[in-house]
Amino acid sequence: MYRTKTCGELRIENVGEEVTLAGWVQRTRKMGGMTFIDLRDRYGITQIVFNNEIDAGLCERANHLGREYVIQVVGKVAERSNKNANLPTGDIEIIAGKLNVLNKSDVPPFTIEDNTDGGDDLRMEYRYLDLRRACVRKNLELRHRIAQEIRRYLDDRGFLEVETPLLIGSTPEGARDFVVPSRMNPGQFYALPQSPQLYKQLLMVAGFDRYFQIAKCLRDEDLRADRQPEFTQIDCEMSFVEQEDVLQMFEGLVKTIFKNVRGVDFNYDFPRITWADAMKYYGSDKPDIRFGMKFVELKDLTEGKNFGVFDNAEFVVAINAEGCANYSRKQLDELTELVKRPQVGAKGLVWVKFEADGSIKSTVGKFYSDDDLRKWGERCNAKAGDMLLILAGKTMPTRKAMNELRLAMGERLGLRKKNDYKPIWVIDFPMFEWDEETQRFYAMHHPFTKPKDEDIPILNSDTGAVRANAYDMVMNGVELGGGSIRIHDPKLQDKMFELLGFTEERAQEQFGFLMKAFKFGAPPHAGLAFGFDRFVSMVAELDSIRDTIAFPKNNSGRDMMTGAPAELDPSQLEELYINVDKARIEKDKK
Amino acid sequence: MYRTKTCGELRIENVGEEVTLAGWVQRTRKMGGMTFIDLRDRYGITQIVFNNEIDAGLCERANHLGREYVIQVVGKVAERSNKNANLPTGDIEIIAGKLNVLNKSDVPPFTIEDNTDGGDDLRMEYRYLDLRRACVRKNLELRHRIAQEIRRYLDDRGFLEVETPLLIGSTPEGARDFVVPSRMNPGQFYALPQSPQLYKQLLMVAGFDRYFQIAKCLRDEDLRADRQPEFTQIDCEMSFVEQEDVLQMFEGLVKTIFKNVRGVDFNYDFPRITWADAMKYYGSDKPDIRFGMKFVELKDLTEGKNFGVFDNAEFVVAINAEGCANYSRKQLDELTELVKRPQVGAKGLVWVKFEADGSIKSTVGKFYSDDDLRKWGERCNAKAGDMLLILAGKTMPTRKAMNELRLAMGERLGLRKKNDYKPIWVIDFPMFEWDEETQRFYAMHHPFTKPKDEDIPILNSDTGAVRANAYDMVMNGVELGGGSIRIHDPKLQDKMFELLGFTEERAQEQFGFLMKAFKFGAPPHAGLAFGFDRFVSMVAELDSIRDTIAFPKNNSGRDMMTGAPAELDPSQLEELYINVDKARIEKDKK
Repeated sequence: MYRTKTCGELRIENVGEEVTLAGWVQRTRKMGGMTFIDLRDRYGITQIVFNNEIDAGLCERANHLGREYVIQVVGKVAERSNKNANLPTGDIEIIAGKLNVLNKSDVPPFTIEDNTDGGDDLRMEYRYLDLRRACVRKNLELRHRIAQEIRRYLDDRGFLEVETPLLIGSTPEGARDFVVPSRMNPGQFYALPQSPQLYKQLLMVAGFDRYFQIAKCLRDEDLRADRQPEFTQIDCEMSFVEQEDVLQMFEGLVKTIFKNVRGVDFNYDFPRITWADAMKYYGSDKPDIRFGMKFVELKDLTEGKNFGVFDNAEFVVAINAEGCANYSRKQLDELTELVKRPQVGAKGLVWVKFEADGSIKSTVGKFYSDDDLRKWGERCNAKAGDMLLILAGKTMPTRKAMNELRLAMGERLGLRKKNDYKPIWVIDFPMFEWDEETQRFYAMHHPFTKPKDEDIPILNSDTGAVRANAYDMVMNGVELGGGSIRIHDPKLQDKMFELLGFTEERAQEQFGFLMKAFKFGAPPHAGLAFGFDRFVSMVAELDSIRDTIAFPKNNSGRDMMTGAPAELDPSQLEELYINVDKARIEKDKK
Repeated sequence: MYRTKTCGELRIENVGEEVTLAGWVQRTRKMGGMTFIDLRDRYGITQIVFNNEIDAGLCERANHLGREYVIQVVGKVAERSNKNANLPTGDIEIIAGKLNVLNKSDVPPFTIEDNTDGGDDLRMEYRYLDLRRACVRKNLELRHRIAQEIRRYLDDRGFLEVETPLLIGSTPEGARDFVVPSRMNPGQFYALPQSPQLYKQLLMVAGFDRYFQIAKCLRDEDLRADRQPEFTQIDCEMSFVEQEDVLQMFEGLVKTIFKNVRGVDFNYDFPRITWADAMKYYGSDKPDIRFGMKFVELKDLTEGKNFGVFDNAEFVVAINAEGCANYSRKQLDELTELVKRPQVGAKGLVWVKFEADGSIKSTVGKFYSDDDLRKWGERCNAKAGDMLLILAGKTMPTRKAMNELRLAMGERLGLRKKNDYKPIWVIDFPMFEWDEETQRFYAMHHPFTKPKDEDIPILNSDTGAVRANAYDMVMNGVELGGGSIRIHDPKLQDKMFELLGFTEERAQEQFGFLMKAFKFGAPPHAGLAFGFDRFVSMVAELDSIRDTIAFPKNNSGRDMMTGAPAELDPSQLEELYINVDKARIEKDKK
C-alpha cells in the first residue's frame, strides 16, 4: 500500500499520528515561509504543510509540484489554526516529513473543479480528467449505490439475477438492431439485444418464477438529445402474478431506493391514473403531478357565440394559472409564441384574466360576455387574480399542446422543483396504436402484452379501443419504467400477431421459438423494466442521463475519448466475408 | 397472486390450513380411488391428492392432466400417512378442493428429471424445458448467489461498480474482436469488448481508486470445448496498491465466497509458487496441488551408462507413483499410449518398479544397475511398492508431457476429488513470450503489465528473462483468475510497446488515448479478473462452464434455441452500407 490513510478520513482525534497519504495535487499555495498543498483522492481533500524553516529542501520540492501530480506524503497529523468548516478533514493538516513524486502530470486542459472552465467536447475527450471532478464522480458513486440497493431488494424477495445473451437473433420489428457479423457462420449476423424481453419470458416458461437483471441494452436509433446507443435497464419478470402484485413489488422497490439512498420517505400509496384520464387531465401519458393546473374542457360553454375558432374546433381546453392575472403583454406574447412553435403546433392562445378588482379581460371579450367568461372561470375554479389559458383544435393535438403550455407554466411558477418527487402509476394503456403511414396497428407496448380480459371480446370489432394490462411508473413527468402482463396463451398470442398484421410465416420466422416454447406450459407472468440511467438521473436531480454514465457517446454515437467507431483493418473484413460499399457512401454523402 | 404458498414451503405445522398452489404437473399416479399429483415450482414439489369418492368430477379432471400442464389448486394441508423423507414437503399433502388449468402443455420432448432421457442437442434446442430440471436450475441459482456475495464483499471494501461501454474501438492485438457496423458513421465499426481492461485503467487515472464490474466480454475465437463467444468476468482494479495488497484482497474474496456459499473454510494463507517453480515441479502454470507426485529431475544420475535416449536428452524427469509397483502390463501400456498421443508428444515412457519384495524391475534394466536405479528411487522418495514414471527430451515439452501424465495418474489414483479445493497463487510470470513464427516477443499477460523492478535493467539485454508483476489464482489445476501490476509511467509504457515490436505509429493508433491519459498523473495501480463462469463451475463441481450459463451457444457459436445467427433482411445491410461477399463464401466452402 502506498498509503496508510485516505485523504478523506483524518479528523481531530487523529492529531499526533504519523500517516502516509497518496493522491493528486489539487492546489498549491505559498504563504510566508510555508507551502500548502490540497491533496485529493476519491475520498476527500487533506491539507499538507511544508515548512521552509524546518526543511528548506523539502519545501523547495513541494514548490515545484504541478497541478495533478501524483504524490505520496509521509507526515504528522496536526490541528489547524484556521479550520475549514466546509471540509470533513478541515480541522487538521499534515506536517510533511517526506515527499515522493509517484507521477508527473502535464497541465490539464481544464480545471479539475466543480465549476470547471472546460467545455462539453473537451471534457468528453478527456473524460478521465472530467471524472476526477467531485461533482461528476458523485453521480457514479450514486449509481453504484442504487445498483447495490436494487439487487438487495430483489434478492431479498427471491428474484434470481440471470444473465441473458448479448449475441442474439435480429427482430426487425420495432427499433433498429445493432448487428454483429458471425465469422464462424459467414453471411450470417447476430443482433445485440434491445432488451432481454424474449429471454426473460423464456425464463418464466423455464419456471424461474422471479428474474431480474441490470442489463445493457442497445438500440441503433438516431440519437435525439439524451439518448445513448447503449443504455441500462433494470429488467424484471415474475410468474403467477396479477397486475396488483407487480405494482406493489416495484412501488416497494422505488420507495426503498429513495428512502435508503436519498432519505425521501414516500409514506403513501402511489396514486394511479388511467391512460385515458392522464390524457384528459394532463394531455400526456407522463403527467407531472408536482403541481395542479389540470385541464378543464370548455367546448360546451363556448358554443353559439359566433367565435368561429371555438365553434369550429372539435375541442376547447383550459388551464387555470393561479395568480397570473397580472401577466404583462410581453409575458403573454412569450406564451403565445411557445404554443405556436411547430413542435407544439397550436394556432394561437386565448386568455381570460380575472383581475383582482373583479373585472375580466380577455382576448375573446368581444365574443363572450363577462357572464359567459365567469362560467368558464367557475368551471376552472378561478379566483380573482387568476388567468385562464385556453387552446382549441383537434382533441389529441390540442391536449399535447396544452401539456407543453402547462409544463411551461409550471416551470415559470417554480412548481417543478427537482427534489419534490411525485410518482404516479399510469395504467390501462391502449393495446394498439394506429399508424396512418403504414395503415396498420402497432403494439403500443409490445406484441406480448395481454389485453384486458373485458376487452378481449372487442379485439376484432373495435381493435383501437382495446386496453392493455400495461402500466408505467412516472415521476415528475418522466417515465421511470413500465411493463405489462404478458400473454401466456399461445392462441391469444397468434391472434395478436394477426391483428398486428404479421403473416403466419413472418411471426414464425421472428418469434417462432417463443411461440413454440409457449406450447409447453407457459405460466401466467408479467414484468417491468426501469430505465436505470434515467432512474439514477432522477435520484441525482440531473438533467441528462449522460451524466450518469462513465463513458457516454456523443450525438453521432461516437466516443470522443477513444475515437470509436473507426475503419477496420481490411483483413478483419475479409475474415467476415463482408465489404464496405465505399462508392455508395461517397455517392450518398453528396 | 395465483398462489398463497409455493410448492416448497409447506410443513407439518401447516396442517389444516387452506392454501392455493400453482405450478407444473411433474407426475400423476392413480392408486385405488385416489389420484396423486406431484406439483412442481422453483421452490419444490408438493403432493396433491384427489379423492374419487369425495369429488368424482374433480378427480376425473385431475386424471386428464398431462405432464407439464400448469395448474392452480386450492386445498387443505393434511399429514401424509406414508411420509417422504427425501422431500422437505414430504410430511404433508394437499387435499384438493378446486382445480384450475392455467395452461396446457404438449408432451415435452424429454423428461423433466435430473436423469433425463434428452440428449445434449435436444436439451439445448428446448433450453427452457432443460432449465426446468432442478439440477440445471440449481447451477443458475448458485451463480446468482455467488454474484450477490461478490458484490457485497467488494462493496463493503469500497469498490465502485462501474459499467464500461460495450461499443468500443477495435484493437487487432490479441484475440479477434467481434465488430459492429455503425449506421451513423458509415464504413466505420465498433468492436465489442474482450475485457474492460483499458477502461478500468482509465478509471484509475480518473481517481476512482477501487473499481469492479461483473462484465460481459466477447471474443471471436474458434470455440474449443468449454469456450463461449460471450463470457463473464469479475473485473477489478485498485490504485495505490502493491502486489501483496491485491493478493490479500482477492484471496479474501475467494475465501468469503467459498465459506458463505459452500461452507468451505480456508483457514490458511493460500500457498504461492513462482511460475519457474510451477514449471519445474508441475510442468504447468496451473498446478493441481490436490496431490503430490512433484517432478524430480534425474538427468545427472542417468548419464554415462550408454542409454542413448537419456544421454541425448536435454532433460530427464520422474514422478513417483506411490503403491503402483503392481501395475499390470496393460496399465503400463495405457500410460505409454497416453504420453505418446500427439497432444502430449512424448516418444516413450520409462518406468522403474520397486517391488514389495525389494527387487527392482525397469524398462531400462539392461542399462542401469539396481544400485543406479536405487539412487533414482532415493531422490524420488520411492518406497517398496512404488513406481517411478520417467520421461526425457527437450525441457519444456517434456515438462508439459509429464504434467499430462501426472494429472492422469492423479485421476487414476482418485486424488482429484472435485470437492477437495486446493488453491494456489502462481506469481512472477515471465513478461514476454517469444513467438517463433512471427519472430517477435508477445506480452504473456498484456502490454500494460509492469516488469519486476529488479528486472528493468535487463529489459534490453535479456528480454526473455524479464519477469512480470503478474499473478494467477489457480485452483485444482484450473486458472480461476489473474492479473498484474500495471505500468503507470508513460516512458516505461513506450519502452514496452517498442520491445513488443509496435511502431510508434501503431501504438499511437491503437492505444493513443491511453498513453495520452497516462500523461496526466496516472496513479500506481493493479488489478485482477476472475472468469466468472469458471468460478461458478468450480464452486458447483461442474465439468463445463456451459452448465453455468442460462442460454449458452454451441461449438459453432450458434444458439440452438433461437437459431441465431441468421441472414439479415437486405434493407438492414443497405442501411449499413455493407455487402456480404456471397461469391467468396461459396468459393471457400468448396
